[in-house]
Amino acid sequence: MQTIKDLQELVNKKLSERAYEEEPIALFEPMTYALSVGGKRLRPVMVMLATQMYGGDISYAIKPALGLEIFHNFTLLHDDVMDNADIRRNQPTVHKKWNENVAILSGDAMSIKAYQYIVSCKEEHTQDVLKVFNDTALEVCKGQQLDMEFEEREDVAMEEYLQMIYFKTAVLFACSLKMGGILSEAPKDQQDELYELGVNLGMAFQLQDDYLDVYGDVNTFGKNIGGDILEKKKTYLLIKALEKANITEKADLLKLLNDAEIKPEHKIEQVTEFYNKLDVGKDTQHTIVKYIEKCKKNLENLDVPTEHKSELKGLILKLENRSV
Amino acid sequence: MQTIKDLQELVNKKLSERAYEEEPIALFEPMTYALSVGGKRLRPVMVMLATQMYGGDISYAIKPALGLEIFHNFTLLHDDVMDNADIRRNQPTVHKKWNENVAILSGDAMSIKAYQYIVSCKEEHTQDVLKVFNDTALEVCKGQQLDMEFEEREDVAMEEYLQMIYFKTAVLFACSLKMGGILSEAPKDQQDELYELGVNLGMAFQLQDDYLDVYGDVNTFGKNIGGDILEKKKTYLLIKALEKANITEKADLLKLLNDAEIKPEHKIEQVTEFYNKLDVGKDTQHTIVKYIEKCKKNLENLDVPTEHKSELKGLILKLENRSV
Repeated sequence: MQTIKDLQELVNKKLSERAYEEEPIALFEPMTYALSVGGKRLRPVMVMLATQMYGGDISYAIKPALGLEIFHNFTLLHDDVMDNADIRRNQPTVHKKWNENVAILSGDAMSIKAYQYIVSCKEEHTQDVLKVFNDTALEVCKGQQLDMEFEEREDVAMEEYLQMIYFKTAVLFACSLKMGGILSEAPKDQQDELYELGVNLGMAFQLQDDYLDVYGDVNTFGKNIGGDILEKKKTYLLIKALEKANITEKADLLKLLNDAEIKPEHKIEQVTEFYNKLDVGKDTQHTIVKYIEKCKKNLENLDVPTEHKSELKGLILKLENRSV
Repeated sequence: MQTIKDLQELVNKKLSERAYEEEPIALFEPMTYALSVGGKRLRPVMVMLATQMYGGDISYAIKPALGLEIFHNFTLLHDDVMDNADIRRNQPTVHKKWNENVAILSGDAMSIKAYQYIVSCKEEHTQDVLKVFNDTALEVCKGQQLDMEFEEREDVAMEEYLQMIYFKTAVLFACSLKMGGILSEAPKDQQDELYELGVNLGMAFQLQDDYLDVYGDVNTFGKNIGGDILEKKKTYLLIKALEKANITEKADLLKLLNDAEIKPEHKIEQVTEFYNKLDVGKDTQHTIVKYIEKCKKNLENLDVPTEHKSELKGLILKLENRSV
């Protein structure tokens, strides 16, 4: 069995080989740039983890797997335009490095490239692969739309928030594992179990991301601590804090978040104090553990030899230990 | 055999039935709007014309056909953002009616919807349909990129211009006819002939569009006369005029095009005078006739009963008579 690290290296190798030297350069260069900036390559790795669990061939699954990574990076590229984000993984975003039109159009081209990779599979797998992928891709758009709408609102309920991250993050994890199941011809019920596992893993992953934005280690997190606070992003911690706060605390927290005068580091410090006082970090960890437990249950239900499960189990444990 | 008019009505009926009442509304409403604004529905009509020519079933081809119309409207939606266009078919564009983020994201969702429709076909047709569609879609992006790059240049050669409209317009016409051939299981060589016919028809269509922008009748053209002149768009007429002009005329024409002070109606009038003097209208018509002749040749090579060809022949003749 290939390890997660092997598979990450394989993805990076394949992506670096695949330089788009086509004309016009302004269309293809941003694609290569966006894909070279890095990341953990979790989605293609998950496709291949599921493939090898069911005895499938990694060299067959690699192209559809890369398709999901290309799609994911396309969504980041367009999201960065919409969110007007300057930096992604410590590098300037495409619309900053080039311009907005380049980002829109090379994003569009990237999404088509993603489809070309995804349908690089046998005829008999194509319809199943596209069904889960198209449904998922549309849900990812829904998630981004809800995320943008939430920015304008201060009354986002926890249920709405969980629905949003389900669309924006969890379903693509789910699609990745299920796609591995399709490509390795796992039984339908096992494909559904893989999908569920992916949903739960994706939910845990996003909540861990919310948590680490406040309580993470700047050296391992890969983003600046407190970024979500400065962007007034709706996160599990903020929604929980607003839920638990009394009327005075709620007003104070909102005033603080909306304060444009206060120094950024003070804003982060003071919001974090609110979170500490209301103990929302612990609430977040409880919910993460709930999703992780579900993942473990799903993993048990996968009908493959225990030794085939070790890598996916390792991924779940890494997430539990806040080190993904 | 269904007539072009029948098929246009069928497309409009199906599109109006297919209201996206899904949540979130801000994602799906712009899609319905963009698709309701109208147009000639040439691409889906061509899919179905080719399908019925080879004895295929229109009720089978309609969904992939609609997919091409949805894809076409997605590209218009994003192009309008990039070109900062306010009006499309006498209605405000999506990014003006809503905003830019809505236009980007609902466009993305629309392109995924397009795929869902396009792959609504039998398993054995899916790979062939996707091959031609993905290649085409990527070429359409290339065409838009070149079109934008040409805006910044005054030395665009005719060959480059023809390459650009080949990508931006002709290949999607070609894809439409070929897709009909695939869905009706026409022999491979016939699919290629359909593709060639579509390329030639698309080239003639775009050149006619260039011509009518200057010499068309405002009542039937559907756009304002002289729009390309005001936008300083590279068209067949402008490139030909710059080719034929002597040094003084060339300088005068470029100065006139770049003049930001002159009244729009005067600019259109004076550029048209240049075109008249250099006789570039006639040159354009010559080139259109050349492509129309190629279309007729391709039509002859289609191995179906003559009476099956009548509708497609009608479309070619309409284009020849400047009434498409």
